[in-house]
Amino acid sequence: MRLATVRLHGDPTTRRVVADHGAGWTLLDTALSSVSELLRHPDWQGQASGPRVDEQDIIAFENPVQDPEKVICCGLNYRNHILEMGRELPEFPTLFAKFADTLTGPTSAISPPAAAALDWEAELAVVIGAELFQASSEQAKDGIAGYTVSNDISMRDWQRRTLQWFQGKAHDATTPVGPVVVTADAMDPAQGLRITCAVNGEIVQDSTTDQLVFDCPALVAYVSHFTRLRPGDLILTGTPGGVGMGMEPPQFLADGDLVTTAVEGIGALENLIVHQPT
Amino acid sequence: MRLATVRLHGDPTTRRVVADHGAGWTLLDTALSSVSELLRHPDWQGQASGPRVDEQDIIAFENPVQDPEKVICCGLNYRNHILEMGRELPEFPTLFAKFADTLTGPTSAISPPAAAALDWEAELAVVIGAELFQASSEQAKDGIAGYTVSNDISMRDWQRRTLQWFQGKAHDATTPVGPVVVTADAMDPAQGLRITCAVNGEIVQDSTTDQLVFDCPALVAYVSHFTRLRPGDLILTGTPGGVGMGMEPPQFLADGDLVTTAVEGIGALENLIVHQPT
Repeated sequence: MRLATVRLHGDPTTRRVVADHGAGWTLLDTALSSVSELLRHPDWQGQASGPRVDEQDIIAFENPVQDPEKVICCGLNYRNHILEMGRELPEFPTLFAKFADTLTGPTSAISPPAAAALDWEAELAVVIGAELFQASSEQAKDGIAGYTVSNDISMRDWQRRTLQWFQGKAHDATTPVGPVVVTADAMDPAQGLRITCAVNGEIVQDSTTDQLVFDCPALVAYVSHFTRLRPGDLILTGTPGGVGMGMEPPQFLADGDLVTTAVEGIGALENLIVHQPT
Repeated sequence: MRLATVRLHGDPTTRRVVADHGAGWTLLDTALSSVSELLRHPDWQGQASGPRVDEQDIIAFENPVQDPEKVICCGLNYRNHILEMGRELPEFPTLFAKFADTLTGPTSAISPPAAAALDWEAELAVVIGAELFQASSEQAKDGIAGYTVSNDISMRDWQRRTLQWFQGKAHDATTPVGPVVVTADAMDPAQGLRITCAVNGEIVQDSTTDQLVFDCPALVAYVSHFTRLRPGDLILTGTPGGVGMGMEPPQFLADGDLVTTAVEGIGALENLIVHQPT
């Protein structure tokens, strides 16, 4: 099943939640304003049907998870990238946090007002569907509602100011998410889904999700050992090789660049960079 | 003025908000369940009075800011500690994040289930009282509602697993906050308030808040240049020298240790460590 938070013709100011079981979009309970809100219903899978929505009535897809309490990101998690850099595989995941305010929509312009060196980081994101605390990998797997696409757009000038990456990773409205959540029964990242990032149509990152050192259940389980996860929370699983910072010379996003981030079986984000003067 | 989130005799299951203008505690609007909720009223200073509360009716002080959207912490911010370590004063603040779930009450036991090497970090915490985005230091100063005491209890075993400190800093219910918020009109940390941490009564940290490299308005302004701050958000300003990790040999908190964290003019946290087996 696919789930999305959208705006519809006829009532464009209100967010709606739609589901697709394979036969086209249907409108869910109109009291819901995001997929994350849907996931907070214990029986959310039973609620995910409704009257048919014509695809042409969808004006825009929004960030499906509007209000996560927790957004936790993993760095250094693609095996082939780590090995090509001559590093050893890590024993523990490298983690940092973002806020709900850091997120933005799948087609939103990205325009941090005070940053100069914007870089791309295509990522598979896990959407939590149950309360998880000190979970085993099996429990974590059962607690994953689904998967979506994200790009951990990084302000490298801020990220490099200190040893802690956070301030380069948490500029408001810089991490696009979407366009849909594909439920966990319909896809398995361990099978190796293609993940790509393209800048102005040129592919700069190209890998597969079976290269994750800490796979999705392992990562969710690890996080749940220090903090409780709840429905709608988001875990970004790390980015493959090919970021701009690693090029020689380093390459950053310029005003007007279009960043396309895709994961096989989910869809693509299309975000224009509007680079403000600093 | 002092503000607090408390539980009162007669209705111990409900959180109440009380204020003290210097003549004892008064009960504010009973619809409020935390000081952070009070601060979200644009005219919160006008609302901060009510019927008298006998001090003996207060069963317990709770974390005054129950539900911040953002908890942002600064590392390496005490001048004398940085200089005694032979380091240069930093050009930028080192920042990382916690969650609302990381916080706990001023007298709560601290008991992370999966961590072994607990350390103390006494901190002055800033409570935000206005919406701030890209604020100047003057605007930031005006947007500070007040100050409280915190201890950035750190799980050093987790913190050292990777280069990013976050996973050692964000274990649920490990950062005590309180016991009260003293409003910004009643105190000025730039004057040099004594800040101490004691373990079982023995003082291990002892400094003054005029030693902050990035003072409170500067730190709040800096953060507001990448993310919007809102009433109830919390900024932890860093810890002075004397943490257990810096001792030779390193010293960590044992089962049954009592950690007392105090800032002059605000009050003290008293937290018992209940050290679970790992």
